[in-house]
Amino acid sequence: MIDAQTGPENSVARFKMTLAYVGTKFHGWQVQKDLRTVQGCLEDILASMIGHSVTVHGSGRTDAGVHARGQVAHFDVLERWAHVPWQQAFNAQLPPDVSILNVERVPQTFHARYSAASKEYVYTLWTEPSFVFPERRPYVWCVRGLNFCSMERAAGNMVGRHDFACFQNRGTPMKSTVRTLERVQFEPGETAYERKIRFVADGFLKQMVRNLVGALVAVGRGALTLDTIPDLLAQKNRCLMPETAPAWALCLDRVVFDEP
Amino acid sequence: MIDAQTGPENSVARFKMTLAYVGTKFHGWQVQKDLRTVQGCLEDILASMIGHSVTVHGSGRTDAGVHARGQVAHFDVLERWAHVPWQQAFNAQLPPDVSILNVERVPQTFHARYSAASKEYVYTLWTEPSFVFPERRPYVWCVRGLNFCSMERAAGNMVGRHDFACFQNRGTPMKSTVRTLERVQFEPGETAYERKIRFVADGFLKQMVRNLVGALVAVGRGALTLDTIPDLLAQKNRCLMPETAPAWALCLDRVVFDEP
Repeated sequence: MIDAQTGPENSVARFKMTLAYVGTKFHGWQVQKDLRTVQGCLEDILASMIGHSVTVHGSGRTDAGVHARGQVAHFDVLERWAHVPWQQAFNAQLPPDVSILNVERVPQTFHARYSAASKEYVYTLWTEPSFVFPERRPYVWCVRGLNFCSMERAAGNMVGRHDFACFQNRGTPMKSTVRTLERVQFEPGETAYERKIRFVADGFLKQMVRNLVGALVAVGRGALTLDTIPDLLAQKNRCLMPETAPAWALCLDRVVFDEP
Repeated sequence: MIDAQTGPENSVARFKMTLAYVGTKFHGWQVQKDLRTVQGCLEDILASMIGHSVTVHGSGRTDAGVHARGQVAHFDVLERWAHVPWQQAFNAQLPPDVSILNVERVPQTFHARYSAASKEYVYTLWTEPSFVFPERRPYVWCVRGLNFCSMERAAGNMVGRHDFACFQNRGTPMKSTVRTLERVQFEPGETAYERKIRFVADGFLKQMVRNLVGALVAVGRGALTLDTIPDLLAQKNRCLMPETAPAWALCLDRVVFDEP
């Protein structure tokens, strides 16, 4: 670990990195002993270059199987490492399922997690019942016969500042489970058979997006009624809570930071 | 094989199938002993259902590694198999890298190869030099610093009825190497960093699209001049022939048939 000492040579340079990964073969973002994780890959490369361990702080963990197009992380190195072309250095050594989109030096006040103003997750549904494009299979959840009108109305009931305790993975201790879901937006997908649902919030609880999608899909299938959503948010009828949507169709699309 | 006999029970029903596949793990379309091929997968499923071997005739072979979004094939079965829900039956048994988009009964006069009026191949270039989205890596060729203006002008010189002998894989015997390249069209890609080049022709020689792309990219890099294209078509300066573009960024997008 870096020991802050006096003198410019011992001062610390902080870098912000934006990265994309295919989550399929990762046990999520966070380092876990003997498991392949994105944070682990990045820290191994840094350690091999610098000669000591450096923590890469992500804006948040992504679950096993979840993809990213705009995950953000930061790391600190001693000033003498500040002029390394970090993006090239990482991309030359990373496996094919991770790519660094950008690296820039940032002030010490920047923190990938605490400075994040909002995050955007995108969930992709495949709606054609009779086939799936094989190259899209690892990135979509196939669900047939959805009523998107009622799903959009149900999504409207989710937006706002709420206690989302009911939508988090059970048994995760959190100080506060109140979050502001700023926007739930239905978008066209990459092919004519896909619909994307974008969730924008100041933060997300563990598996929150996947549980929100589970609830929306249950509404779209007619298994839940529209007004169940406020009930779920009020933590009534928890037994109505539908299945968690699968991880592989979820992507951390963007982390937004306030201008410094 | 089917022995045409008299009686409606022994008459033959022809089916046209449209299919998509990820070519990465296939040794191309055409059956080859002990190798995994798309035609082989389809024929194995048919044989296991029907109890004897049935040939699946493709509109054309795709090379090892080449993908398809709209390959077309046909096969014949005895009339008593005509009411099988073929699309479902295939999709239930196919591996995840192949999917049947459509199956329909067609007259005996239909032939996937001989009835095809034109074919459309799409080649995808990744143009951002500093990174690649990892999920796009198996489908794009990364080339930096291309001049797309000169590529579009060079493409204009390719269009028309020409002897494309120079653009076929060497040593492939063909009766005629004259083809009509109807259109070469530059299109936006699936992400902001991609450009697609669509080739429409009445037929293609082996590796013709990959050689045309090789020549276009050489022009885009300034390694070939615009007017080399007519020279190459006139089979002069064959030594100028640039590298064949890689297979993995090529996709058979569509096969067009005249209305019966």
